[in-house]
Amino acid sequence: MKDSPGVVDLLGVLAYAELSAFARLTDDAAALAPSLADRAALSELAVAEYGHFRLLRDQLAELGADPEQAMAPFVEPLDAWHAQTAPSDWLEALVKAYVGEGIAFDFYREAARRLDPPIAKLVDVVSADEGRSQFAVERVRAALKADPAASGRLALWARRLVGEALSQGQRVAAARPELARMLVEAGADDQAEVSRMFARLTEEHGKRMAALGL
Amino acid sequence: MKDSPGVVDLLGVLAYAELSAFARLTDDAAALAPSLADRAALSELAVAEYGHFRLLRDQLAELGADPEQAMAPFVEPLDAWHAQTAPSDWLEALVKAYVGEGIAFDFYREAARRLDPPIAKLVDVVSADEGRSQFAVERVRAALKADPAASGRLALWARRLVGEALSQGQRVAAARPELARMLVEAGADDQAEVSRMFARLTEEHGKRMAALGL
Repeated sequence: MKDSPGVVDLLGVLAYAELSAFARLTDDAAALAPSLADRAALSELAVAEYGHFRLLRDQLAELGADPEQAMAPFVEPLDAWHAQTAPSDWLEALVKAYVGEGIAFDFYREAARRLDPPIAKLVDVVSADEGRSQFAVERVRAALKADPAASGRLALWARRLVGEALSQGQRVAAARPELARMLVEAGADDQAEVSRMFARLTEEHGKRMAALGL
Repeated sequence: MKDSPGVVDLLGVLAYAELSAFARLTDDAAALAPSLADRAALSELAVAEYGHFRLLRDQLAELGADPEQAMAPFVEPLDAWHAQTAPSDWLEALVKAYVGEGIAFDFYREAARRLDPPIAKLVDVVSADEGRSQFAVERVRAALKADPAASGRLALWARRLVGEALSQGQRVAAARPELARMLVEAGADDQAEVSRMFARLTEEHGKRMAALGL
């Protein structure tokens, strides 16, 4: 097994993030999509997440870790995040798929920055969106064009997604100090790098909000 | 568009059967699996169904049909089937994934028997199990070995799955006469062939029940 328990933690949290996102997106698609074409579009995202889960599980096994044990500490906080952020309509589901997943993956990528290249590359691969969620951007923009008044509600929803993510992230960091250390140490020979990391996360989040027109 | 509306109906019902099975299996996996490994195993089945959905949707589009319109008549009866047969525990979910999906796909395959070879082949491909559900058989057999008394309850559950499938199938047949005609005409230059078809369906179902030890 890789000596740093942080690596197994990172792959474990990512693996369960993908497995639970797969289930939630599938469920949101079936329950909230206004058409079968929309349902298929969100289901495509879900299936891509499942493919990422497979890669992470296999990498854990390759490192000699038990994927089930590696994921176990993160089941409760990630399930709690999803329970706290169950979308109540299709637009909320789309904003969650784009903004909520986006900021989570930015975090994982930051944590992986100084890992061995093969692991860092795998994290990059499973965190990459590759334009798959572009349909969500288009749907939300079209909806806001038709109903500009919805933007206040959706902007609030996006803030809540981020707030709940930070709150669950803090729980994870408290329970898994090695993982928290990886994130802080990722670029942090000096305090300025930590500030730059948070600036990057904020900037990427801002770009996604702007893309949605929020 | 293919002249027989029955073809579009068959591909439409199959496409929605795959899309809804994808969502239900994913949900059953997330809600009922006793371990993350079991959850992943049932999710694999779900993702395979989604891949079949893609093939069917693309084939409908290639025939000049609107996939959404082709699926629409079958949304309600298939959703009703799933609502009537929501498993209450993991073993019921496994029996449903194996026995319920199995008999449904046998029906679709029978209906496709006399279609143009490319369509009949596609139906064969999306109906093929390819050993994917073998894990369900193993899990159910192991559970029955540990608790033989569960077999009565699960045998009853399997009968209910088939009964509800027939009941929804009759609704579909009444609403879509071309589809019903395809099934009857598939092998039915004579009445004896219809009897043989039902014998085949019964035999395959019996094999699945025996494989489970029910």
